[in-house]
Amino acid sequence: MSPAFTSVISGLRGELAEMVRMTGDAMGRATDSLLNADLETAQSVIAADRIIDDLNARIDDRSVRLVSTMAPADSEVREILSILRVATSAERMGDLAVHIAKSARLRYPDTAVPPAAREIVREMGELAEKLAAEAADVLETQDARAAADLKVADERLDALHRRLFNLVLSPEWNDGIEAAVDLTLISRFFERFGDHCVSIADRAALVATDRS
Amino acid sequence: MSPAFTSVISGLRGELAEMVRMTGDAMGRATDSLLNADLETAQSVIAADRIIDDLNARIDDRSVRLVSTMAPADSEVREILSILRVATSAERMGDLAVHIAKSARLRYPDTAVPPAAREIVREMGELAEKLAAEAADVLETQDARAAADLKVADERLDALHRRLFNLVLSPEWNDGIEAAVDLTLISRFFERFGDHCVSIADRAALVATDRS
Repeated sequence: MSPAFTSVISGLRGELAEMVRMTGDAMGRATDSLLNADLETAQSVIAADRIIDDLNARIDDRSVRLVSTMAPADSEVREILSILRVATSAERMGDLAVHIAKSARLRYPDTAVPPAAREIVREMGELAEKLAAEAADVLETQDARAAADLKVADERLDALHRRLFNLVLSPEWNDGIEAAVDLTLISRFFERFGDHCVSIADRAALVATDRS
Repeated sequence: MSPAFTSVISGLRGELAEMVRMTGDAMGRATDSLLNADLETAQSVIAADRIIDDLNARIDDRSVRLVSTMAPADSEVREILSILRVATSAERMGDLAVHIAKSARLRYPDTAVPPAAREIVREMGELAEKLAAEAADVLETQDARAAADLKVADERLDALHRRLFNLVLSPEWNDGIEAAVDLTLISRFFERFGDHCVSIADRAALVATDRS
């Protein structure tokens, strides 16, 4: 790989990591807005998603220019495509944070999360934020072991997802159908967010393997 | 655009249209399996998703080779990236059909859809199948008006999505929380499927506009 290409790619990958960190931060704040029925924070997450979308568009443009000006080889094209896919995932992660913030807004001044589910949702939000931070790190380090660890953390998120399902379907559930339906979707958004983090880390580690 | 490039691209676009049609067919069969508690059909949808995934991988490989061998210009690179994005969407649509089929399998020999929701779910499945067929057509015709029509059809799917929500949250709902939770996710899968169809048609029409 030419030094010029490597330097541009590493710059792109750094921006991408920044973008993924922003989605983790957005998810953390969205969860807070949900747990605390905090309308202001929910609105700020929704409004700030434009920044993530703009970053995606910018990475997109620069990748296209990179391909058309640098005549990249097969492996280099694969690397650029991998970057574009990660940017698409990150854009989607931003959307999922927005979905959570919108659930908070929809039920304001109430909260969509009854006390019985509070602890699980809090853990899911914390884990989602952590997964995004770790996926961003893997983008920069391309460390295959860190990518594997991330998969384990995502399994914990999946386990919480199942726990929440079991909770709303249990005979002890006294919070009605609306809260059950809200939590079903909220839990699904967290779970998808985690899946995107795993796929980002896998891609980053895979590119490193292909290159070696 | 060079004639050689145009011919390769048009071949790729045809395969992509085929792939999108397959996801529509999968969604139609998944809906049948759901409504009729038909385990065999559900299993066949789940098993056949591998074919859609393989098509995605093949389109991916050929696009990479196209970029690295044909030294494409900016607009050509954009066209290839658009194809890759559509393939990613189609792969995801296949996954959503699998999710519906898995809901059918999970509740077998019961059905996840109680009689009260049957007609809405049937319509959602029909509409999703139609949207996929139309998105496939737009890939081949790149007709901006057809892309706009598709958006209107997707709004009908969104309206059904809201109707199903209102139904499970209404005081008349007598089918309990499990069915409400199942239908919340099922409805979400249909809605996402429709969104992917709209985004595919938009991309196909956009590429045509950029070129003219």
